[in-house]
Amino acid sequence: MPSSTINVGIIGVGLVGKCLLRNLSLDRHTKAFAVVGIANSKRALLQDPSKPISLGEGEEPSGLLSSAPALDPKAFITHLAQLQGPAVLVDCTSSPDLANLYPVALRQGVDVVTPNKKGFSSDLSLWNEVQKAAKESNTLVYHESTVGAGLPVLATLRDLVRTGDEILKVEGVFSGTLSYLFNTFCSPTTTTPPFSQALLKAKELGYTEPDPRDDLDGMDVARKVVIVARSLGLPLSLGDLTVENVVPDVKELREASSPEAFLSALPGHDGHFSKLREAAKAEGKVLRYVGSIDPRSSKGTVSLNAYPSSHPFGALEGSDNMVAFTTRRFPNPLVIQGSGAGDEVTVFGVLADLYRVHDQRCTRSA
Amino acid sequence: MPSSTINVGIIGVGLVGKCLLRNLSLDRHTKAFAVVGIANSKRALLQDPSKPISLGEGEEPSGLLSSAPALDPKAFITHLAQLQGPAVLVDCTSSPDLANLYPVALRQGVDVVTPNKKGFSSDLSLWNEVQKAAKESNTLVYHESTVGAGLPVLATLRDLVRTGDEILKVEGVFSGTLSYLFNTFCSPTTTTPPFSQALLKAKELGYTEPDPRDDLDGMDVARKVVIVARSLGLPLSLGDLTVENVVPDVKELREASSPEAFLSALPGHDGHFSKLREAAKAEGKVLRYVGSIDPRSSKGTVSLNAYPSSHPFGALEGSDNMVAFTTRRFPNPLVIQGSGAGDEVTVFGVLADLYRVHDQRCTRSA
Repeated sequence: MPSSTINVGIIGVGLVGKCLLRNLSLDRHTKAFAVVGIANSKRALLQDPSKPISLGEGEEPSGLLSSAPALDPKAFITHLAQLQGPAVLVDCTSSPDLANLYPVALRQGVDVVTPNKKGFSSDLSLWNEVQKAAKESNTLVYHESTVGAGLPVLATLRDLVRTGDEILKVEGVFSGTLSYLFNTFCSPTTTTPPFSQALLKAKELGYTEPDPRDDLDGMDVARKVVIVARSLGLPLSLGDLTVENVVPDVKELREASSPEAFLSALPGHDGHFSKLREAAKAEGKVLRYVGSIDPRSSKGTVSLNAYPSSHPFGALEGSDNMVAFTTRRFPNPLVIQGSGAGDEVTVFGVLADLYRVHDQRCTRSA
Repeated sequence: MPSSTINVGIIGVGLVGKCLLRNLSLDRHTKAFAVVGIANSKRALLQDPSKPISLGEGEEPSGLLSSAPALDPKAFITHLAQLQGPAVLVDCTSSPDLANLYPVALRQGVDVVTPNKKGFSSDLSLWNEVQKAAKESNTLVYHESTVGAGLPVLATLRDLVRTGDEILKVEGVFSGTLSYLFNTFCSPTTTTPPFSQALLKAKELGYTEPDPRDDLDGMDVARKVVIVARSLGLPLSLGDLTVENVVPDVKELREASSPEAFLSALPGHDGHFSKLREAAKAEGKVLRYVGSIDPRSSKGTVSLNAYPSSHPFGALEGSDNMVAFTTRRFPNPLVIQGSGAGDEVTVFGVLADLYRVHDQRCTRSA
């Protein structure tokens, strides 16, 4: 009989990692998963599966880690590998560092689940190494939450690809921040604000990066496009994409020395954005910031486009993500829509991946 | 090491079964699956996994079955159970008969995959027996294509439920036929036809049942609502639902002795439908035939409702299905949209389920 419990090690206990740990501490999950290790960037707490780590309401991971020894990521992985039964490394950091160790974990028999985009959208050589390590050691890598948070984007794509569908196009509003920004800037129902004010509102709501130029430059969307493209079998990297930076190419904006300097110079350029909006409006369209992948030409694009309000992208509201798969079987696209940002929906994707691992590791193979 | 190939037996070689068999005959799938049995309602062909059954372009299953022995469903299942390695019974019939044998298959170690709604939407006792048999014998049952064809509706629901989300509401346009009918009848862009003409057009396109009253009575949608409800853990059956029959409650329509008699009487009642359409239109709304499940009150409803065109259901076009999950994590619903009818998309769901079985049976359990 296979084990019925998976040992889980979580590195990164910021908003997502903490939310995950709190979820895994609930009774409903403790039969399937035992948290045997947690770590922040400095310290690591390792435990035996018989005494799993749990985080009660109001408790903080920092409390559990305050007197723990220093983190050694390789030793953390080895701890997981040496335990009896299946084990998963969950990378809840947003740095590229740990990703370099995914192949090490996989080759030691430790499965990997992560919402961290960095490892899958950086060097193609790392992507290839991860796939090779998983294949050769019969281990699993799931990263649903790297695209559209918990929305079933990569799971659906995997099903389409392996069942033999032909993917003709993937298009998506992949950024909750830019979805909110352009849905507000081009709202068909309310008075439309100047661009700088729409951005300020998004910032006030906590939707933007500390420096909003890190959203507006399109690199976050570009990373998701790379991950979707690679999941389709296209060997694309960030440098291969055409990415439209929403910030106009003027020095006082792109090279402003601080977010504050950028935000105070932006109203002077509201006319640039209003012109784009009015041009779209004259054709009955609205602006949306979209990432797309064309498998036939092997091209990935990130750009600000105009869509009629009858188009699914045109009807988007709030900060929703939307991904449309046009395929041989679905010439009218298969569309997935919903919140693509926030701890809770990100953790949904991580938990769904963990249960996928559980399905595969804890079913009797016949 | 577990097997890497799953033995597959297909009962029912109509449009869906034939399309499935043709897909499984493609090189890309033959490493993962070996078709070791096919059957129509009369005859069954059983094979050894070393000589799997395949169907070339232009070939018909009837040709393969013409001189085969009579079908004995229990013997068919026993054949699957006795082979070396994992085996799946795929029920591609649309009758309730084979469903009674699902527990027999499961208890013999044979997994079940099916697009057939009948077994999962009829007696609750059969549903319970199937779940119990699967649990006790550690076997698998997947039936993604019973709701929304291949759209990832049940897979997403399973992920939401088992990761601990709280489902507040599930609403859907679950019938491609009725989606097309009301999208046409209430089109915001083209001239709207009388109801009887919209129905005739749907019939001409092959979207309706031979007797369109079998679509309009809502029972097909009701079956899908029952399956979604049960997948959520609600013990509902068809008799527990409130189902609105779209056909007005007049004798000459409901009791017309033939589809032709019904269709020729229908234009006399176009006024009834026009009145509904105009009442909706006066509020800026359109009519949609929707199934919904409210887990808190444990109620299921199938009814003709009015939605503003800004609502996702209001913006539907063609014969698309759409399912919206409102949950604690997704107060703004997670929405899945796309074609929910036709052989190709139904087979997509069956193949995706088969690969789910492959994932679980052919991964080394640690």
